[in-house]
Amino acid sequence: MYGEVISQGTVTSPRGFVAGATYVGLKTRGENLLDLGILYSQVPCGAAGIFTTNRVKAAPVTVSQLHLANGQPRAIVVNSGCANACTGQEGYDNAMEMAHLTAHKLGLRPVDVLVASTGVIGVQLPMDKIRQRLPLIAESTNGGHELARAIVTTDTYIKEIAVSFQVDGCTVTIGGIAKGAGMIHPDLATLLSFLTTDAAVEPQFLMTALREAADASFNMATIDGDTSTNDSLILFANGLAGNNPIQAATPAAAVFVGALTEVCVHLAKLVARDGEGATKLIEVLVTGAESLQDARIGARTIASSMLVKSAVHGNDPNWGRILAALGRSGAAMREGLTDVFIGETALMRGGTPQVFDHQAAVALLSRETVQLKVDLHLGPYEATAWGCDLSEEYVTFNSDYTT
Amino acid sequence: MYGEVISQGTVTSPRGFVAGATYVGLKTRGENLLDLGILYSQVPCGAAGIFTTNRVKAAPVTVSQLHLANGQPRAIVVNSGCANACTGQEGYDNAMEMAHLTAHKLGLRPVDVLVASTGVIGVQLPMDKIRQRLPLIAESTNGGHELARAIVTTDTYIKEIAVSFQVDGCTVTIGGIAKGAGMIHPDLATLLSFLTTDAAVEPQFLMTALREAADASFNMATIDGDTSTNDSLILFANGLAGNNPIQAATPAAAVFVGALTEVCVHLAKLVARDGEGATKLIEVLVTGAESLQDARIGARTIASSMLVKSAVHGNDPNWGRILAALGRSGAAMREGLTDVFIGETALMRGGTPQVFDHQAAVALLSRETVQLKVDLHLGPYEATAWGCDLSEEYVTFNSDYTT
Repeated sequence: MYGEVISQGTVTSPRGFVAGATYVGLKTRGENLLDLGILYSQVPCGAAGIFTTNRVKAAPVTVSQLHLANGQPRAIVVNSGCANACTGQEGYDNAMEMAHLTAHKLGLRPVDVLVASTGVIGVQLPMDKIRQRLPLIAESTNGGHELARAIVTTDTYIKEIAVSFQVDGCTVTIGGIAKGAGMIHPDLATLLSFLTTDAAVEPQFLMTALREAADASFNMATIDGDTSTNDSLILFANGLAGNNPIQAATPAAAVFVGALTEVCVHLAKLVARDGEGATKLIEVLVTGAESLQDARIGARTIASSMLVKSAVHGNDPNWGRILAALGRSGAAMREGLTDVFIGETALMRGGTPQVFDHQAAVALLSRETVQLKVDLHLGPYEATAWGCDLSEEYVTFNSDYTT
Repeated sequence: MYGEVISQGTVTSPRGFVAGATYVGLKTRGENLLDLGILYSQVPCGAAGIFTTNRVKAAPVTVSQLHLANGQPRAIVVNSGCANACTGQEGYDNAMEMAHLTAHKLGLRPVDVLVASTGVIGVQLPMDKIRQRLPLIAESTNGGHELARAIVTTDTYIKEIAVSFQVDGCTVTIGGIAKGAGMIHPDLATLLSFLTTDAAVEPQFLMTALREAADASFNMATIDGDTSTNDSLILFANGLAGNNPIQAATPAAAVFVGALTEVCVHLAKLVARDGEGATKLIEVLVTGAESLQDARIGARTIASSMLVKSAVHGNDPNWGRILAALGRSGAAMREGLTDVFIGETALMRGGTPQVFDHQAAVALLSRETVQLKVDLHLGPYEATAWGCDLSEEYVTFNSDYTT
């Protein structure tokens, strides 16, 4: 571990970040609902963002990309319950108005505000309610928990964390929150995650660090292979920790990326485990790959195979499905060299099926976290992917989302 | 239609083809089981094959590819219930012995026999039983129906067809059978399909024709995105119709490819509709694409989206999922130009959500065949893909396949 986990840590744990949330009626399930929130750095800060690769981008994604390119964003306004995607010009105008309303409230320029939305596609935002409720949001230094609640949709729990570590003898904190549940897939499908740090970070390196952390975490988490129109991963760094700005290729950079990756992996695992209808987390480790790319694509393909996910759901040690998924992944492999494990139990070694204790394998598959491992014996690279089992409830849930 | 559908047509409808099947105990579900069969041209013939793109190839695939390259195949021996995949050297030896046993029975060279298997991965074939039962198979000119029964696994019905048409004033027939149910996906996942024709076809053009037909049919059918270790599509042409050998880029070639594609589309639709747990066929038409590749990848990605499949299952006109799947497909598109339809009902036009009759859309989604259409308004290309809805039963079924 690079960082020390802060008890009850969240996105407002780093110095100078405040957040708050309110309810405008976009979400209708559950109690004590929150569905509109603001995250804000009290001082100017650096910002970096990674967004959906889907060609169909929601209006808030378009607005955020524009503002990151042209402004100095230090606030995010976010709603759940409505994705504001596939909503045409009206949707774009509404996303822009959310930035304006937030800027007015906080005394910022609109171009310094990012916008994020998640929920049903193809429906317009109820702007009258947002105009009415947004100015009433009360930001506080403990408001990260409220914000974490305000961004969830079909999630069954809140996802937040903060860690602290030393840079230049200064204590630096990174906090993060995330939502996700269905449609999680590389790259970043229907994921919202907001990260904050009080570290001082050289602006260009901030984006490099975020990309590196995302590639080893959120981009290795998969639920159903569908990618969203709204994925947004945002990192703010406001420098209040007082360290010298972290630059690329320094020891401080390695520590910072390591801790940022830990935060992102923690959130990505929480997201994968919370897949719609999921009952367990699947962790797939591919070792011995010829390249990092091969290790990643192999692990992701196994973690996202519907047949593997169904087999894990049923505690069925049907390891041929693991090998078949690997075989279609595009990763370089030779069947005659490949080992396949469930936990520490070898089911295949060097391409030859092993006699194994079926009961023991079923027991390993019955755990809350199921570990699948493949050793390709071709090179030094490895990668881990996270997914979840596929249950009947996933189908029931998704047959019935808008109706 | 290029060809006229023959009543009760099958793979032994073309002249000179015989087939038969027996039961060796590989399958255990159902009644009147058959699980080992032979298809055979009584005269020498041309042969072409397309096989799985998975890097993990079952032993029978390796043997068939070898024999197509080095022999003059005119027979196939096929079993269901055991895939003979991930079975190491022993599996390879067993597949080779199946070719030897069949060659001995028919008076052929082993290199003139192809081998196919489908079923559970990682289990060895019971060769003692195969040695005992294989010689007892009785081939007949009506044996195609038995063979069609012998190749199915989790299929809920038999898939067969034959069509006839005129070439040079000669009546030519093409017959085909297929199996598939889970793991169907481009390219050709866990699909077995055997096609026969009494047409005379120039050898090199035979492969071209098969590739063209497969690309518009089996490669456009998708069930769960998993691809198999065993996919095999085989075409035999024995020339008994008496036509002049069909050559590329002639009117006869166009008719032949057209009829062959009809046969393959018919079988591919039967396969898609019979997806494990499926209750309906989804037909996705993408028009107005910049390229054929774009049209195909767009249609396939929509047809294979778990969220689209779940929505169709629940009769939920959640059209945003169609657009989101298209957006991640890689097909060139502009949201502001795109129309989305369920049946003839427009849900989006030019990127703008349309007011539509929700009840009517639900009714269209409740049909046995659900038609989704996207017009990209970018070019002249179009393609159709076939898939099925995702039901709770798919999960139940696949949680529990080997245990």
